[in-house]
Amino acid sequence: MDNLLNIDRLKKYQAESLVSLATSIKSNFPLIKKEKPLVNKNIIFLFLEPSTRTKTSFKFSSFILGANIIDISPASSSITKGETFEDTLKTLSAYPADALILRSYENSHIEMAEKMLDFPVINAGLGTLSHPTQALTDLMTLKEKGIDMKNAKISIVGDIAHSRVARSSIEIFTLFEAKINLCAPNYFKPKNFSDIPYYEDLDDALKGADILMTLRIQKERFNGLSVDIEDYSRKYMITKDIMDKYKINYVMHPGPVNEGIEISKGLQDSKRSLIHEQVKNGTWIRCAVLAEILAGKKI
Amino acid sequence: MDNLLNIDRLKKYQAESLVSLATSIKSNFPLIKKEKPLVNKNIIFLFLEPSTRTKTSFKFSSFILGANIIDISPASSSITKGETFEDTLKTLSAYPADALILRSYENSHIEMAEKMLDFPVINAGLGTLSHPTQALTDLMTLKEKGIDMKNAKISIVGDIAHSRVARSSIEIFTLFEAKINLCAPNYFKPKNFSDIPYYEDLDDALKGADILMTLRIQKERFNGLSVDIEDYSRKYMITKDIMDKYKINYVMHPGPVNEGIEISKGLQDSKRSLIHEQVKNGTWIRCAVLAEILAGKKI
Amino acid sequence: MDNLLNIDRLKKYQAESLVSLATSIKSNFPLIKKEKPLVNKNIIFLFLEPSTRTKTSFKFSSFILGANIIDISPASSSITKGETFEDTLKTLSAYPADALILRSYENSHIEMAEKMLDFPVINAGLGTLSHPTQALTDLMTLKEKGIDMKNAKISIVGDIAHSRVARSSIEIFTLFEAKINLCAPNYFKPKNFSDIPYYEDLDDALKGADILMTLRIQKERFNGLSVDIEDYSRKYMITKDIMDKYKINYVMHPGPVNEGIEISKGLQDSKRSLIHEQVKNGTWIRCAVLAEILAGKKI
Repeated sequence: MDNLLNIDRLKKYQAESLVSLATSIKSNFPLIKKEKPLVNKNIIFLFLEPSTRTKTSFKFSSFILGANIIDISPASSSITKGETFEDTLKTLSAYPADALILRSYENSHIEMAEKMLDFPVINAGLGTLSHPTQALTDLMTLKEKGIDMKNAKISIVGDIAHSRVARSSIEIFTLFEAKINLCAPNYFKPKNFSDIPYYEDLDDALKGADILMTLRIQKERFNGLSVDIEDYSRKYMITKDIMDKYKINYVMHPGPVNEGIEISKGLQDSKRSLIHEQVKNGTWIRCAVLAEILAGKKI
Repeated sequence: MDNLLNIDRLKKYQAESLVSLATSIKSNFPLIKKEKPLVNKNIIFLFLEPSTRTKTSFKFSSFILGANIIDISPASSSITKGETFEDTLKTLSAYPADALILRSYENSHIEMAEKMLDFPVINAGLGTLSHPTQALTDLMTLKEKGIDMKNAKISIVGDIAHSRVARSSIEIFTLFEAKINLCAPNYFKPKNFSDIPYYEDLDDALKGADILMTLRIQKERFNGLSVDIEDYSRKYMITKDIMDKYKINYVMHPGPVNEGIEISKGLQDSKRSLIHEQVKNGTWIRCAVLAEILAGKKI
Repeated sequence: MDNLLNIDRLKKYQAESLVSLATSIKSNFPLIKKEKPLVNKNIIFLFLEPSTRTKTSFKFSSFILGANIIDISPASSSITKGETFEDTLKTLSAYPADALILRSYENSHIEMAEKMLDFPVINAGLGTLSHPTQALTDLMTLKEKGIDMKNAKISIVGDIAHSRVARSSIEIFTLFEAKINLCAPNYFKPKNFSDIPYYEDLDDALKGADILMTLRIQKERFNGLSVDIEDYSRKYMITKDIMDKYKINYVMHPGPVNEGIEISKGLQDSKRSLIHEQVKNGTWIRCAVLAEILAGKKI
């Protein structure tokens, strides 16, 4: 693997291999730290949107593997102030870097970066389009629970329209032939995925589901859309009662969680929640991605 | 030691052991750097209040011992924006970290962190409550000068009400059985420490004192309190004349210093000032704290 | 070498030696990374003005040589808020640092730092006065192209008045006995350098030049000066036609480039442009400066 761009550029065996590598790194954690497979590698972090979880877990992954981090995300930096993204890439291409980890608000940026840089580019969340390491983390978390993806029935509920996580997860679950359906109020209805069953009604969507992924309401991407949050919660908030009623085995959420809006208080800490495992596995998947791309690490 | 929370949870022998270890690291500095006792350790820095000195010296300490730093202090980070501190801790608990160094505006945060995280928590300044590494630094600085704490007479002068440093220093000096008194105008009178002599008048407080610790006026914590700074300075500013008149051996200040307000211009650079030594020793105490907690380093 | 302050404190053989060392590091890059000549060195970065290129390349240089970086540049840090720069230096002098890399808006800061700190100080851009690593980078870039500096004819065109790069480049080109002239509209006319030919007219300046260095218009330093940018571009923008007309071999620019203002669109990517090489070489010159000052690295 030379890059990690969008899930649609990932083959099934590659996703499987990344999950296996992540699982192996997770269980050999102290050993890998000693080995430092990425020693002397310098990784540029460029996050053009705020991020805590993804950025922090990429930092842990980099340090666990022994790499150095050069974080040039704006705030104090002049990058992208006045400069076009193309200018920024021109500058980046001049550094002796070993990889770029990029988060951007703009869907086209990741392929621009791939084209202009001669070192690997890793997608850490891209516009409304994709968040491949999150999708891989979800896959890993399900596989750890012994889920057979081919027979899994997954309902994805909530603000699908604005969620790059939903999009990447749908793509990866589809790659693994899981049975998916989507559930959202009309105003959050996804524009793509016309071949995947869509229900406005939660009851219709949850019948027969084993796994439920609820999504963060992303006000920051509403762009003028007016949503009655209380009404949304009344109809779509996932509660313990809903989990019981439809016999859902696991609830997932890409975080950060709005408790009391898309998920009821406390449910994320219950036994059937994989939410905490998802955050944990994020670091191991990112280790696997970095090890695979930067050190050609095989299992 | 598993943690460094508040001074009241520190035993005398532990404080002594940390000071000895710090002194030993200070004199074996180049050796320790080669040894890297904390190699492969990843330390999270979470500073929810601004800090330069404490943060920088914790960074030096971490690097001197060979650890990596993951600084997630807000500004560009989304942590604590909207999220409760409990949510933040939940996320932190998912990372394979070796320690958290926490500064917070809120007194309850350090014990919440201790409870929710299964890696060590180190207090880098907490609300109005405590600043244990500063207190240990003060202790080290006095011991270096050969001060016998049991016979020391220490006057603490100034904005005691808003000073977590004062509070931690009082606690540590008390642990070492020094004779302390407090001196402040009525509006800076501490609410705790009813068993320690308090004087409004500087003359009463300084009679017989060997060591004087003056404190930074902390406008950022006044919370509506209106103080006539000029009047304060006229009555409480420490000058060379005052040092001479009361035969004070040493003046201390936790920094940053407001020259011309709580201390006269130039006095911090005089022979009787320990202020510069305090800043220097901060790094060594923090080395000792990290080495002790993270590597079980004994002297 | 103990420091890197201003170019006027650099001897010719030192500049030559730094360029040779940079060239050698550039060609032995993977080896140097393994060698880590600056392992266990802790370098403070204090950038009091925004910077991306210079700061990022100093970070790469530090990591390539194995050093640690403690970046205390303001934003979240309280340094320089209320504090004088002298107070800041007092604090810095208390840390066990191996060097300070300083960028400042104030010409006097670098020599204050030299005086107050007992570790080396490296100038990363200083007020209107100097930017020595940029000047050394320009020298390296010209030498790589086989330019014999003694016979080179260099025109420096544009906002010379506000450019510290221009000033340092003029000084270093003069040190190497190149023939220089300056070209700027009256409002950008430099106040110094009365012994170097100055032309208001581009035609006069470019006759016989081999190398042309155009400069970034620095609005952030205009200080109330009102400039008709369109009129400026009409008269001074460097284009392919100008390059052809005057048979200029190479065009240089210290970056970041304002395309369509001081240089026409696309010209920076042409064969006769050294602009991209300048950015690249910045990292190697900064490696050389750090290696020479911190490890006494000889070629």
